[in-house]
Amino acid sequence: MSFNTFGHMFRVTTFGESHGVAIGCVVDGCPPMIPLTEADIQQDLDRRRPGQSRFTTQRQEPDQVKILSGVMAHPETGVQVTTGTPIGLLIENTDQRSKDYSEIKDKFRPGHADFTYEAKYGLRDYRGGGRSSARETATRVAAGAIARKVLPDVKVRGALVQIGPHKIDRAKWDWDEIARNPFFCPDKDKAAFFETYLDGIRKSGSSIGAVIEVVAEGVPAGLGAPIYAKLDSDLAGAMMTINAVKGVEIGAGFGAAELTGEENADEMRTGNDGTRFLSNHAGGVLGGISTGQPVVVRFAVKPTSSILQPRLTVDRKGAETEIFTKGRHDPCVGIRAVPVGEAMMACVLADHFLRDRGQVGR
Amino acid sequence: MSFNTFGHMFRVTTFGESHGVAIGCVVDGCPPMIPLTEADIQQDLDRRRPGQSRFTTQRQEPDQVKILSGVMAHPETGVQVTTGTPIGLLIENTDQRSKDYSEIKDKFRPGHADFTYEAKYGLRDYRGGGRSSARETATRVAAGAIARKVLPDVKVRGALVQIGPHKIDRAKWDWDEIARNPFFCPDKDKAAFFETYLDGIRKSGSSIGAVIEVVAEGVPAGLGAPIYAKLDSDLAGAMMTINAVKGVEIGAGFGAAELTGEENADEMRTGNDGTRFLSNHAGGVLGGISTGQPVVVRFAVKPTSSILQPRLTVDRKGAETEIFTKGRHDPCVGIRAVPVGEAMMACVLADHFLRDRGQVGR
Amino acid sequence: MSFNTFGHMFRVTTFGESHGVAIGCVVDGCPPMIPLTEADIQQDLDRRRPGQSRFTTQRQEPDQVKILSGVMAHPETGVQVTTGTPIGLLIENTDQRSKDYSEIKDKFRPGHADFTYEAKYGLRDYRGGGRSSARETATRVAAGAIARKVLPDVKVRGALVQIGPHKIDRAKWDWDEIARNPFFCPDKDKAAFFETYLDGIRKSGSSIGAVIEVVAEGVPAGLGAPIYAKLDSDLAGAMMTINAVKGVEIGAGFGAAELTGEENADEMRTGNDGTRFLSNHAGGVLGGISTGQPVVVRFAVKPTSSILQPRLTVDRKGAETEIFTKGRHDPCVGIRAVPVGEAMMACVLADHFLRDRGQVGR
Amino acid sequence: MSFNTFGHMFRVTTFGESHGVAIGCVVDGCPPMIPLTEADIQQDLDRRRPGQSRFTTQRQEPDQVKILSGVMAHPETGVQVTTGTPIGLLIENTDQRSKDYSEIKDKFRPGHADFTYEAKYGLRDYRGGGRSSARETATRVAAGAIARKVLPDVKVRGALVQIGPHKIDRAKWDWDEIARNPFFCPDKDKAAFFETYLDGIRKSGSSIGAVIEVVAEGVPAGLGAPIYAKLDSDLAGAMMTINAVKGVEIGAGFGAAELTGEENADEMRTGNDGTRFLSNHAGGVLGGISTGQPVVVRFAVKPTSSILQPRLTVDRKGAETEIFTKGRHDPCVGIRAVPVGEAMMACVLADHFLRDRGQVGR
Repeated sequence: MSFNTFGHMFRVTTFGESHGVAIGCVVDGCPPMIPLTEADIQQDLDRRRPGQSRFTTQRQEPDQVKILSGVMAHPETGVQVTTGTPIGLLIENTDQRSKDYSEIKDKFRPGHADFTYEAKYGLRDYRGGGRSSARETATRVAAGAIARKVLPDVKVRGALVQIGPHKIDRAKWDWDEIARNPFFCPDKDKAAFFETYLDGIRKSGSSIGAVIEVVAEGVPAGLGAPIYAKLDSDLAGAMMTINAVKGVEIGAGFGAAELTGEENADEMRTGNDGTRFLSNHAGGVLGGISTGQPVVVRFAVKPTSSILQPRLTVDRKGAETEIFTKGRHDPCVGIRAVPVGEAMMACVLADHFLRDRGQVGR
Repeated sequence: MSFNTFGHMFRVTTFGESHGVAIGCVVDGCPPMIPLTEADIQQDLDRRRPGQSRFTTQRQEPDQVKILSGVMAHPETGVQVTTGTPIGLLIENTDQRSKDYSEIKDKFRPGHADFTYEAKYGLRDYRGGGRSSARETATRVAAGAIARKVLPDVKVRGALVQIGPHKIDRAKWDWDEIARNPFFCPDKDKAAFFETYLDGIRKSGSSIGAVIEVVAEGVPAGLGAPIYAKLDSDLAGAMMTINAVKGVEIGAGFGAAELTGEENADEMRTGNDGTRFLSNHAGGVLGGISTGQPVVVRFAVKPTSSILQPRLTVDRKGAETEIFTKGRHDPCVGIRAVPVGEAMMACVLADHFLRDRGQVGR
Repeated sequence: MSFNTFGHMFRVTTFGESHGVAIGCVVDGCPPMIPLTEADIQQDLDRRRPGQSRFTTQRQEPDQVKILSGVMAHPETGVQVTTGTPIGLLIENTDQRSKDYSEIKDKFRPGHADFTYEAKYGLRDYRGGGRSSARETATRVAAGAIARKVLPDVKVRGALVQIGPHKIDRAKWDWDEIARNPFFCPDKDKAAFFETYLDGIRKSGSSIGAVIEVVAEGVPAGLGAPIYAKLDSDLAGAMMTINAVKGVEIGAGFGAAELTGEENADEMRTGNDGTRFLSNHAGGVLGGISTGQPVVVRFAVKPTSSILQPRLTVDRKGAETEIFTKGRHDPCVGIRAVPVGEAMMACVLADHFLRDRGQVGR
Repeated sequence: MSFNTFGHMFRVTTFGESHGVAIGCVVDGCPPMIPLTEADIQQDLDRRRPGQSRFTTQRQEPDQVKILSGVMAHPETGVQVTTGTPIGLLIENTDQRSKDYSEIKDKFRPGHADFTYEAKYGLRDYRGGGRSSARETATRVAAGAIARKVLPDVKVRGALVQIGPHKIDRAKWDWDEIARNPFFCPDKDKAAFFETYLDGIRKSGSSIGAVIEVVAEGVPAGLGAPIYAKLDSDLAGAMMTINAVKGVEIGAGFGAAELTGEENADEMRTGNDGTRFLSNHAGGVLGGISTGQPVVVRFAVKPTSSILQPRLTVDRKGAETEIFTKGRHDPCVGIRAVPVGEAMMACVLADHFLRDRGQVGR
């Protein structure tokens, strides 16, 4: 069974393969009367688009989104708004470079989903990874752009906070830097270092992992649903669906294992407009429900599995062989995972926001 | 909206509060003809049961499970088997010690869900944490015992691998040790150390975090569903629903961020019975689908929020105050999270196992 | 795969067999702060309770409901209210008369689910029909009582409008009559006739079908969700889950097939408080969304399959044989289906009501 | 909340408006390795296509379907097969005749969803009915063509059995006639009558209702899931989602209300290959589970609401007015509902077929 929908009230269903005709998605459950144009979605897509620097794949895809349904000009204002019906989005694939797939058609690339898709389905789309390609994430970013519109008072931003063993200096965090370097890195100095560092990785035909942090500000207290739709559970599940992600943490995360109860508890005082927390080890979530503080999620992305170094593998017949993956790839897939992480955060929050409006007690 | 069901084909719905009449669950989707008695479930419950050592809460609960439906004596063999209909399970609460709740009734305990439940619902069950209490996890362990029966060839085991900053020595890993110490610790020496260490924590009225690792062996290749029901996504979401969990990782996890592509790729060779991997950085999951290797999940548990140290807080009226939490508590909730983690792993695997039998290509 | 949950935001999960220890359900998604006691639920259960007249099964079950979770005394008012957490309900089976099942243990009763449960599960609980018994509907009535509380301004009432070929006279419809005869019949004269008529059916060891109509008044316009969660689709699906139901219709129903467009269209005028319809062929639903008029659903119930007349059948080994069903049965199961139909209507409306509060445009 | 997905294991998500750029759907959960081309889908679409006789709307839409994803040439055979990933389907709208909508833009057409969409969403796509148009059913027919492929041994056929008060003669039922008249009518003589009869309806600017019967042969015993995913419940819900449907019945349906237990019970004997039923009042479903007999569903379709006769209505401001609907419409929408009913039947059966392969006991 494949399963290509996420969300309960704000539901996104995606389709499409890396080298097929098109990719797309259906956003179902978006409330009506929200102004929405293709340009609103395009600006998020452009942040994820490949080929923007030498540190991401050189595949050239304009990633031009087309809205197929779910919007109309408001009968009075003429402004294009959502109608409450499903929004179909289409992105055509234009740069499915015709290449020789004979090398990977019958061999399983280590670290890729080749072996497992074949084990599950009996066949796999070997052209660019088919459905398992990160190309699918473009549709999530498009959906995320709509999710942001559902949450006008929430600001969702992501940042790359680690590449390989190199972590940013949190004291130097500046959100404005994100747009100024090709890494979505909030630490200007570390961004400069990453440029040199990743050049080395790229030139050696290798790749490297990364850690991304996504922060949502303006989330009201009370979002999330005990027990099996906790906000942090849904966030963890959502982030783990992103290609190459191997770990997710909220707030203090794995660091919380090393804390004592006194250190970890976020003490409370009274602020101007209600309760104020003196720290945020919780990452904005207690008991699966938002506290009103920023929601903070981090996730670890493994290194790109497509590398120019030969690796041992087997082929579809079970014979032992070697493989190395030519072609256009990201030396660090973590970079382009930043807008994808933002999109998933926005979608999960929009989903819970719409669910929780069903609640009387708020 | 509360949401107290997890799973798609193997569905578990839980109910009950810490200090109510009873807790319980409904296990729906369990295949018929599986031998099942209360004793089968009880043995897992007994591993989680409180009050078994001085390192867990002194609340005395026999946690005696009662099967209310879904089983019958097989008409020919007389063996009690599942019928394919929903299995109702009930565990009565017996030790809801009547105590004075005036201290916590109106104050929000930092680190607990007090503030957020109140923000969401307008009221909260202050008696022992109500629904947000880890007592709910007993019902998961009961459900997990049934899930194990659905997967006769899969062995799911959990271990505590870190308390505070102290990690076990993986070279000393011995599964047999798990049952010999009160920590589910596979490293005999470290278990001895934890005894002293936790005594110190406990006596100081403090608490400490931990990391748990759950391993499933015998999982066939091909379980999991792209894109939004990836096996690792469902596992991450499931573990994150456990009380106090702040991080989840699969295989190399956050460590993967520091690896190069060459290091991370699990190379493949031919083995006696098919493909053999030379390493398992993937933790048994590639592209969201199981590889046939052991599925390895780790999760971080924050320190118990109920501590004897006073912390700053506010009350329901917004007035600033202090609180310290008397009562019976675990100095390290991570310990009893081990069987809970196993149960969640078993449930997720059973769910995917049942879903994937709908697949033609396998 | 069994599936024992219905609803999306107001979710009811039921369990239990006719002759097991207990039946029960979990009501999940009920908003907090709603006053709720066992007595509130009991009054609906008492209307469905067997053994109240000679026209329903003589099984004696007090059907005493017990609330296991999800309520507490409000900290200020002391009134018992819902907390927003799942409400566990339990009804013990007390009159599982030990009887000789050898007659039906190995033979398939025509019209019953014996053959199909066996075909699906390989075994079946032959004691009183097990899970396929209408006893399960007691838990729905309990859940429906809670659903009514979610919809304080909606009045849901059901009536028996036909037994066998005998339809009531709609001109004589009087809701007050419902409580005055054992048939929930709104036509006093027809009720008197039914008494004689059903006595004949009962004494001949036969049974007869019926039609029930359920009407919900006070439903606001705008409930329902295109395309696959239309209000009428959910109602049709819900009614068809009730034991023995073979047909469902909304408004004019099958009669609409015989109407012209002019006859069928419900014309609109302006009323005191908005739009007023001049007729209600639509049954209160257009395009799957409520119009604000009464929602009107009818469903047909087949005759009880347990009869004292011998019928041809086969046994589990495939040998041809005969069977006739002794035991306590309803000559017309349609009678007790009235409160069950009300409960399903209430649950569907509560579910949509909670979903639609997630809508911006209203 | 809109909800545009149906099915659990075989999931179809549709999007698109009558007069938008395109309509389409995503079919998710289709097993891999099934041969599938656009031509396979097109042949079903052509049966539903408008403009094929003077008895359906004169809108000219080629309804050419395009497969966007989820298929590839099998690496060995070269035959195009499904891959197990979601199948995106697109049908462009080509004949969105630019017309003057001023008449209906601000007035609510009685019998249509105009008033209710406006009540729910605050606006509605008045161009051709937008999302509430039966145009959406083209995407269901496309999905149904794929569902048929999942069920190679099941034959799903529909027939029009009644128009207005005129029922076919069941003794004259000939499936071969279905393709020989523009009504999908299995009774040759009645088809001839319908030609004259509908001409009269059409010329008078009126419309008329109809009843459709869909039969699935070859359905194995054991499909369906107690209690809330009974096969007949899912079928009833599915049929009721079709535009203009007001009633659904299974087997004897509403007629069962008039039967005695002896008449209604389908007696059983032994046949060549197992149990044989002597009648099929059950319509192939007992206790929500298929019996192995043909599954028989009937549904009533109300008359087209768009008629040339003026009707009383109100406008968006609440002012009383009149309306009559010019434009291209079907005098009997029931006709084109036949292939749509088949598609829904096929989808529900495929869904249950895939679910039930998760069952051990079969």
